[in-house]
Amino acid sequence: MSDPRQVVAAKRDGYSLSADEVEAFVEGYTRGEVNDALAAAFLMACLLRGMDGAETLALTRAMIASGDTVRFEGLERATVDKHSTGGVADGVTLVFAPLAASLGMAVAKLSGRGLGHTGGTLDKLESIPGLRTDLEPDEMRRQVADVGCAVAAQSERLVPADGKLYALRDATATVPSVPLIAASVMSKKLAVETDLILLDVKAGAGAFMKTAADAEALAEACLGLAHGWGREARVAVTDMEQPLGDAVGNALDVVEAVDVLRGEHRGRLRELAVAFTARGAVATSGADLATATADAQRAIDDGTALERFRSMVEAQGGDPRVVDDPTGVLPSAPVVLPIEADRAGIVASMATERIGLASGALGAGRVRKGDPIDPAVGIVVRCKIGDQLEVGQPVGEVHGRDADGVRRAAREVLDSLELRDEPVTPPPLIHAWLD
Amino acid sequence: MSDPRQVVAAKRDGYSLSADEVEAFVEGYTRGEVNDALAAAFLMACLLRGMDGAETLALTRAMIASGDTVRFEGLERATVDKHSTGGVADGVTLVFAPLAASLGMAVAKLSGRGLGHTGGTLDKLESIPGLRTDLEPDEMRRQVADVGCAVAAQSERLVPADGKLYALRDATATVPSVPLIAASVMSKKLAVETDLILLDVKAGAGAFMKTAADAEALAEACLGLAHGWGREARVAVTDMEQPLGDAVGNALDVVEAVDVLRGEHRGRLRELAVAFTARGAVATSGADLATATADAQRAIDDGTALERFRSMVEAQGGDPRVVDDPTGVLPSAPVVLPIEADRAGIVASMATERIGLASGALGAGRVRKGDPIDPAVGIVVRCKIGDQLEVGQPVGEVHGRDADGVRRAAREVLDSLELRDEPVTPPPLIHAWLD
Repeated sequence: MSDPRQVVAAKRDGYSLSADEVEAFVEGYTRGEVNDALAAAFLMACLLRGMDGAETLALTRAMIASGDTVRFEGLERATVDKHSTGGVADGVTLVFAPLAASLGMAVAKLSGRGLGHTGGTLDKLESIPGLRTDLEPDEMRRQVADVGCAVAAQSERLVPADGKLYALRDATATVPSVPLIAASVMSKKLAVETDLILLDVKAGAGAFMKTAADAEALAEACLGLAHGWGREARVAVTDMEQPLGDAVGNALDVVEAVDVLRGEHRGRLRELAVAFTARGAVATSGADLATATADAQRAIDDGTALERFRSMVEAQGGDPRVVDDPTGVLPSAPVVLPIEADRAGIVASMATERIGLASGALGAGRVRKGDPIDPAVGIVVRCKIGDQLEVGQPVGEVHGRDADGVRRAAREVLDSLELRDEPVTPPPLIHAWLD
Repeated sequence: MSDPRQVVAAKRDGYSLSADEVEAFVEGYTRGEVNDALAAAFLMACLLRGMDGAETLALTRAMIASGDTVRFEGLERATVDKHSTGGVADGVTLVFAPLAASLGMAVAKLSGRGLGHTGGTLDKLESIPGLRTDLEPDEMRRQVADVGCAVAAQSERLVPADGKLYALRDATATVPSVPLIAASVMSKKLAVETDLILLDVKAGAGAFMKTAADAEALAEACLGLAHGWGREARVAVTDMEQPLGDAVGNALDVVEAVDVLRGEHRGRLRELAVAFTARGAVATSGADLATATADAQRAIDDGTALERFRSMVEAQGGDPRVVDDPTGVLPSAPVVLPIEADRAGIVASMATERIGLASGALGAGRVRKGDPIDPAVGIVVRCKIGDQLEVGQPVGEVHGRDADGVRRAAREVLDSLELRDEPVTPPPLIHAWLD
């Protein structure tokens, strides 16, 4: 690379960059030859001028080239990865992994530890006593072969450029760019060689993408990267105008996932886990969608999926009794305050991010990399948009460490509910499927 | 400033920033609280989204606030500053300062040491043996009172934020932005309190602004800043499609300036020095333009301006005999090669920047701050656009240190000339005056 400033100048002036230019620039940044200031100018120019599909693919390729890639060789079943761009009460993976395994897929999910109002899938699973997510590659491969599913922490060597670039974007107001987000999301998925990627792009007040149209643009960019890399993917744009499940925490999400897997909890979380499982089965085995959907429903109702969950927990060193007595096994918070409606009306909207922030304030999430998470605390909200509430009606509870904290959180939840007198149509769960 | 990223995000999203936001951000950068990466993202967002007049004025104000300001108190005559955005063979200041002084203006010019193909006004003057430009403020004020003109080096404390910001812009491909350039140019002029600012914005192949339209946009932005600051200014957009004078060096420029001041050298350099002097007289004394122009011409032809130049050189410690025998006093290069036309035709265009680069290659300029300059070397080109050349006709000479170097430079000059058979109309010298 003769002068990396020329690459930035070309993007600044609205030209498309060649794949070589993008890769040389990003590799130069990863190696420390391009400094933060020039990289920040590049990111802002990319954000404001846009990046076409070829540029975004080249960026993704350079990010993947910064570290190791992962292969799961010798597995007989089709391997599947599933990822969500993040929302509130989004515990789909906890249900999906054992459910898809019970339908014959090999679910191999490597996950990062992001920042957020609550922990991610790794943190939720780790609230189960004894459970480890630091699986060695061979260990993970064996578990996937034996049990059909494994959820493990991705290595620091998986796409290290993403961590470096994301930190710079966060520090320089260059996060909200569809191609930059798509490259960040997909680099980590493409670095792990699976037969199918299932991606859930969230849209709404509780997600990064506030509208379905924005989320669809991101979904298309991600799908374009998968295809450009020669990988199969199915991408859903799904609703985040309200919490997906009821639980907004860590151990609380495991309790809810077990309830769903026992067939005791119906609703949007179950519905979305079934939808992803069915789409995965269609893509990997050629089943028709109706049959695959019925198979997934049955695997919940007959306990097959629950037993897979038990096996997965056991294989990763966790206490398998979590399946029989989740609240007995999981950590619990000392103070639990029921939330009761203080107004009557029909739920017209939920300030979803505010509910997430209230859970974060209780200690359920992390603001900085490496911060500890309190697995026991969080919020359960049992109403959804369109529900009729009466004064005094229980709508959930807050699990916290002290009386003041739980009172504040309960107040936040109630204030996040907009009530009306007229009937309200809930938003659709799934806006679109792209493949 | 709560979170400087919010200022960058607002500019990124196309909002106008308040003066307070701009000032807080730039002051945060100057104090080191905003790092290079965030500042680079800010500069790229400003470049691509633009800055309105109020934002640019706030940026300029913050830059001026980073250092000291200069006043020349107790002078009876109107003080005038003159600045050019830079071109090739642009020795106007050397002629203007004594000429304007001889018409009754008090010329107080503080100059920086920029990078360029040749040195700046300070370097040219310093090729006169003994001449100092490191005048103390009081010393400069006294000289302006006694002689009518002084050209001195600006202190490191004059707009230090400009140096820091310019270095960052150079490193991050964020130089070519009209508001950022205008703030950089005008901050240094507004930090020195004079009654009138005369600004020469160059347009063409040998200037940063390649077209008259771009130069006019910069001229308007600069004028807007002067007015916003409550200062009088006259701004010219002038031609840089060809070298303004003949000399492209340092000592060579002094020789040419003396020739002009002796009335022996007519042409564009004299014409532009007269035009700036006349506009300055109109603005400061209310003279009419025709009278002021005639006065300036006469001050050259009767030797008044030359004597002012002698006094200025003497006051600054330089050898005053430079006025009587410039080539005898100034340093000279060991190798001088005449340039002779190797083709016949009419000069249609001159690759002006290439001529500047050829002089820089001889050692006449500096690439990095603090680099030494060879005062003796350079190029003299005596043809202009529209001139008829015959094969073998002398068109100038190269002054250098070795035979290879001067041959290369002479070749570059000849290659920079585009010749045609048809008559060519030279570009106008002055595109526009703004006030």
